Amino acid sequence: MRATVMYAAGDVRVEDRPDPVIEQPTDAVVRVVRSCVCGSDLHYFHKLERTESGRTTGHEFIGIVEAVGAAVTAVRPGDFVISPFAFADNTCALCREGVHTACPNGGFFAGAQAEYVRVPQADGTLVIAPGITESTDEALLKSLLALSDVYLTGYHGAAMGRVGPGKIVTVIGDGAVGLSAVLAARQLGAEQIILMGRHASRTDLGRDFGATHVVAARGEEGIAEVRELTGGFGSHVVVEAVGHLSAYEQCLGVIRPGGVISRVGVPQYDDVNSGPGPLFGSNVTLTGGVAPVRAYLEPALAQVLAGTIEPGRVFDSVLPLEQAAQAYADMDERRSIKVMLRP
Amino acid sequence: MRATVMYAAGDVRVEDRPDPVIEQPTDAVVRVVRSCVCGSDLHYFHKLERTESGRTTGHEFIGIVEAVGAAVTAVRPGDFVISPFAFADNTCALCREGVHTACPNGGFFAGAQAEYVRVPQADGTLVIAPGITESTDEALLKSLLALSDVYLTGYHGAAMGRVGPGKIVTVIGDGAVGLSAVLAARQLGAEQIILMGRHASRTDLGRDFGATHVVAARGEEGIAEVRELTGGFGSHVVVEAVGHLSAYEQCLGVIRPGGVISRVGVPQYDDVNSGPGPLFGSNVTLTGGVAPVRAYLEPALAQVLAGTIEPGRVFDSVLPLEQAAQAYADMDERRSIKVMLRP
Repeated sequence: MRATVMYAAGDVRVEDRPDPVIEQPTDAVVRVVRSCVCGSDLHYFHKLERTESGRTTGHEFIGIVEAVGAAVTAVRPGDFVISPFAFADNTCALCREGVHTACPNGGFFAGAQAEYVRVPQADGTLVIAPGITESTDEALLKSLLALSDVYLTGYHGAAMGRVGPGKIVTVIGDGAVGLSAVLAARQLGAEQIILMGRHASRTDLGRDFGATHVVAARGEEGIAEVRELTGGFGSHVVVEAVGHLSAYEQCLGVIRPGGVISRVGVPQYDDVNSGPGPLFGSNVTLTGGVAPVRAYLEPALAQVLAGTIEPGRVFDSVLPLEQAAQAYADMDERRSIKVMLRP
Repeated sequence: MRATVMYAAGDVRVEDRPDPVIEQPTDAVVRVVRSCVCGSDLHYFHKLERTESGRTTGHEFIGIVEAVGAAVTAVRPGDFVISPFAFADNTCALCREGVHTACPNGGFFAGAQAEYVRVPQADGTLVIAPGITESTDEALLKSLLALSDVYLTGYHGAAMGRVGPGKIVTVIGDGAVGLSAVLAARQLGAEQIILMGRHASRTDLGRDFGATHVVAARGEEGIAEVRELTGGFGSHVVVEAVGHLSAYEQCLGVIRPGGVISRVGVPQYDDVNSGPGPLFGSNVTLTGGVAPVRAYLEPALAQVLAGTIEPGRVFDSVLPLEQAAQAYADMDERRSIKVMLRP
């Protein structure tokens, strides 16, 4: 099959790799209908050290079940499925608690920017999208693909932040995850949604998704604008969808005492000041993490199929799989918010 | 009046100070019936740099209203009152959200180990304890005094940790706050309460308060014991009632993926590793802070008056105010869990 392989920062190639096969009775093999590039892939695109064997990339995909192992009962060849970016058994204590990303039988995909993917724990992992085929309308395919990671990562940020009616929510970052967090905050009933971002084409989509205010300024100026919009007290919830320390520091500036900072941008830093000052002194909660997409997938799928939400709008570009390197470059240079790949 | 004054680490004196007076129309002056020493006072007892003028100490007290300003309507001279350790207007947006410790008209007491205290924002701060007098049974006075800080600080830890039915809770620290957190976790319906502490006289009280297990070991050994008690996955909630970095690291060792670390020991450190690993990678929430006691005071008072809870049992010593220095030393050297002071 054709697969995307990264050999070093900036060195992305599409080449032949062996087709995946059923290795365990609980496996399925899925033929990928659509995949895409994630903001977290860009961290490797910036930092990966050269490797001779290369590293297959991609963790988001929708597709059609090609084969299943003997123990798989929930999906059959021919089913159109959505896969969360992490596989999980969906039966253990941690999955039952909604923390599928910590499932002891689970793990993360790394090879979905390809024609086929082996899916461990297929019964627990894959969710059937009824009535969907390869020739389903492209906009709907985009929204289904968004359920593999980006929308539900944004949703996780809002949910962990306990967004609800009456809440003021600030979203830091106008990338695809930030925009998704805006849409999720709207779904969860937030009263006021402030999007901090400065790319008009992106923040315009943010407004469509439900942002009531856009703050383009950064640093102290941006913080002052948010505080003014929130009666001086700050935001009940801040969803941090960037991952850089400067974004975290922005969170501390706009958070309200007793508020929740919810991070879904993978932190590109280690230590933060969590001492008597910024967090403890103001009863600020720090939460978030790697989204257990599976926990949220079914209700969101129902919303997508009903046309209630259209999270796929974050895909503003579609390229053939063979142009994966271009997809990375387009996202890295901000020509595209998020690129869908068509094998 | 007589008041406790700290001049340097280890140098606590009781001496004459001017009686407080009504300064603002919203003030009250309360004659202290009982006060006490807090674990957080001990941080100053260890670290305060020498000061010529001295620093009046203490923030927990119950007493009788002596005088009120012209604007005070909720309490009258003669009322027996409980004061949270922070004053607040109880009407602003932040107080209405339960974050009284961030009230813009609020602040912290520092002079309650004395005969009289000036109480700003008296209407918002003081809570009347009906039917209580100076000659009320000493055990009941202890429990009322525990509502000024210690019990409700422990309660805050459990509440912020979202303790509830079915939850496994680990409390780190067998001091008065840790023991209070055990009692609170029990009240909130925790299924399993593991107390990490190694002073038998304290952990015995912890068992009385509702601890189902006591783990005396520390470090890796203690962590292993807790993990074994929790089916290998760790504790849903960890209440950190110490404040030292080693206790925080203990939290990381026993927390379950998706769990909540709730800190109520004032952190004696600044930076913690909050990067992709320990918190984000496991969807662990870090919460807690300076307890907004006022938010919890009334329902807890009803429980104390009904005899449902007896949080005052953490006071295992009562000394006259004149022996405040002894009270500090007794707590510092762990001869007493918590010392009540009688002016």
